[in-house]
Amino acid sequence: MPRAVTGLPFDDIRNLAASLPHADEAARQGALDRQAQLVKPPGALGRLEEIAVHIAAWQGRPIPKVDRPTVAVFASTHGVASRGVSPYPPEVTKQMVATFTDGKAAVNQICGAFGAGLRVFDLALDLPTPDIVEADAFTEAECAATMAFGMEALAGEPDLLCLGEMGIGNTTVAAAIFHALYGGEAEEWVGPGTGASGEVLERKIEAVRAAVERARGHLDDPLEILRKLGGREIAAMAGAILAARLQHVPVVLDGYVVTAAAALLHRLNPAALDHCLAGHVSAEPAHARVLQKLGLRPILDLGMRLGEGSGAALAIGVVKAAVACHSGMATFAEAGVADA
Amino acid sequence: MPRAVTGLPFDDIRNLAASLPHADEAARQGALDRQAQLVKPPGALGRLEEIAVHIAAWQGRPIPKVDRPTVAVFASTHGVASRGVSPYPPEVTKQMVATFTDGKAAVNQICGAFGAGLRVFDLALDLPTPDIVEADAFTEAECAATMAFGMEALAGEPDLLCLGEMGIGNTTVAAAIFHALYGGEAEEWVGPGTGASGEVLERKIEAVRAAVERARGHLDDPLEILRKLGGREIAAMAGAILAARLQHVPVVLDGYVVTAAAALLHRLNPAALDHCLAGHVSAEPAHARVLQKLGLRPILDLGMRLGEGSGAALAIGVVKAAVACHSGMATFAEAGVADA
Repeated sequence: MPRAVTGLPFDDIRNLAASLPHADEAARQGALDRQAQLVKPPGALGRLEEIAVHIAAWQGRPIPKVDRPTVAVFASTHGVASRGVSPYPPEVTKQMVATFTDGKAAVNQICGAFGAGLRVFDLALDLPTPDIVEADAFTEAECAATMAFGMEALAGEPDLLCLGEMGIGNTTVAAAIFHALYGGEAEEWVGPGTGASGEVLERKIEAVRAAVERARGHLDDPLEILRKLGGREIAAMAGAILAARLQHVPVVLDGYVVTAAAALLHRLNPAALDHCLAGHVSAEPAHARVLQKLGLRPILDLGMRLGEGSGAALAIGVVKAAVACHSGMATFAEAGVADA
Repeated sequence: MPRAVTGLPFDDIRNLAASLPHADEAARQGALDRQAQLVKPPGALGRLEEIAVHIAAWQGRPIPKVDRPTVAVFASTHGVASRGVSPYPPEVTKQMVATFTDGKAAVNQICGAFGAGLRVFDLALDLPTPDIVEADAFTEAECAATMAFGMEALAGEPDLLCLGEMGIGNTTVAAAIFHALYGGEAEEWVGPGTGASGEVLERKIEAVRAAVERARGHLDDPLEILRKLGGREIAAMAGAILAARLQHVPVVLDGYVVTAAAALLHRLNPAALDHCLAGHVSAEPAHARVLQKLGLRPILDLGMRLGEGSGAALAIGVVKAAVACHSGMATFAEAGVADA
C-alpha cells in the first residue's frame, strides 16, 4: 500500500477511536431521578434499572425508547476454514445467509418474538479472506474499507443495535485475536465453536497458534492484529460499534466472535465500549473471561453458542422490558402509594 | 372444624398431589426429534432448546405454542405486617393492587412488552390473616378454600401460567415456611425483602423464629405448615400450580414468595413441580438455595427483588423466543444447509 499524504486509513480510525463522544450525563441523571420515584422499592428491578439508565444516557434522553431495535448480522468467509477447523464445511456460511433471507434461522424467530428488525450484510462471500496461517487477511485499505462498510448498520436509524455474525471458521479467527491481544497459550482461547472436538479441535488450536506466531512483532497494535488475522465480519462489526457511538445508539454485543471485534476497539481506547451491553455469555469457554477483561457483565447466561446475533437478539426482550418499566410505571405520587 | 364423613379437604389435596398427571413423553420425544433437525449445531441454542422441549412435553404437543401467556398476581394482607417487619406500611398492598388495575406497575409494563395477559386476584385485602406469631393463619377449611380459589388462575385458559404476588409482610411468611420446611436458624431464611434492615430486619427474624416455634410439632406436614403460617396468596398459588398441572399448562415461578408455595407442594410430592420453570433467581439471599433444593435452575439472574410476578413475566420473553425458534426454524433439509 502506498502511503497517502493525508494519512493512512488506520490513522483516521485511531483518531476516531481517541475522540469518541461521551454519554449524556444530564440524561443519565434525569433517568436516575425518575427511577428513584417509580412505584417500587429502590433497586428492586435490579439490572433492569441499570439497563434503562444506560440506554437513557447513551440515547441522550431521560426517558429512552427501544422502538426500532435492529440486529445486524455480518457474514463472511475465511480461508482458514479450508484447514478443517470446523465440523461444518465452508459453504454453510452462504447457505445460512440464504436461510436468514428466507426468515428461517433462529435469529429470525427471536427478532420476530420481539419486533426487532434484522439486516444481513454479505461481505464478499465468494471471496474468502486468505488463510491467516499463511497470509494477512487484509491490506490496510481493505481493512479500513470493511470497517467503513460496517458503519452501514446504522443506516436504518435503529434506536438499539444488536450485532451478530455468521462465518464458518470465525471462532478460529476470534480465538486468534484474543490470543494476540491477551497472550497465554493458544488452547486457552480455543473452544468448540459450532462443535469442534478431537482432531478438528487440534487443527483449530494449531491454526490459532501458527496465525498468531506469524503476526508476532505486530501484536501491540490492535488494528494490525485485525489486518493480519481478519476477518471481514469482525472488521465490519468494529466499524458498526464505532458508528453507533457516533450516532448515540447503544449496542448489544452477542457472543465470542462479536466480542473479538469489541476487544480490538477496547485495546484502542478502554472507553470505546462504554455504550455497549453484553447480551449474553456464551457456552464458548473463554467468553466469560473475555467479558470480564472488558468489564462487561452479561445480561443472559443460557448456554447458547449459535452466533447469528441470537444471544444479543434475545437480550432485546430484557432491554425492551427495562425501558418499558422505566417509561410506563407510575411514580409513588402519581399512584398514591405510600413510600417507605 | 368438624370432620366431614367424606374426608377432610386436606385429604383431598393430598390425594390430588399424590396422583398428578405426567408429562406427555411422546410429545417430548417429538420435540427432541425436531430439535435435532433444526438448522443449527446440536445444542447451540442451549437452554432455549430445553425450555422448548419442556413446554412441548407439558402442553402435550411436539410443537408447543405460547400465544396466551398469563401472569396471575395474588394479593393478600398479613397480620404479621403490624409488627413492623417491612419498611412499607400494610396499606401499600391495597394501593399496589389499584396500581396493577390502573396498568401502572412494573409487571404491567413487562406484560405489555411481551403481549402477556395479567390477572390480579384480591384475596380479602380488608381482612388480614391473623398475626402468625400468635395464631394460625387459617382454619383447614379456609386454607383449602383459598387453594381452590387459586385454581381460578386457569379460568382464562392460558397456555403458559406465570405466578406473582403482592402482600406487605409476605417475605416474612415465606421465610417462616422455608424455616419450617428446611430447619436451620430463622436468620438463614430471612432477607431484606422490600428493603428491611436494622431493627426492621431484627423484628422480621424474631417474627419468623416465633411463628415457627409456635408451629413446632406440626412441621412434618406441609399443609399444616401452610395452615399455621399462611398466607392467602401462598395458598392460592399452591392451588394454581396444582390446577395448571391438571390442565397441562406449564408454569413459570417468580421469586421467594412464589417459591414458598412451590416448596410446600414439593414436600407433598417431589414430582409436583415437574411442570414448573423458575423464571429467575431473585436478590433475596436464600432464594438461590431454595431453588437448588427444589432442583430448579433459574432462567434469569438479574438481581430483581420486586415480586408482582415481575421476574416470571420477564422470563416470558425467553420462553416465547424458545418456542418461536422451535416452531419457526427450518430443518437442515428444508433449508438446504449442509449438516456436520
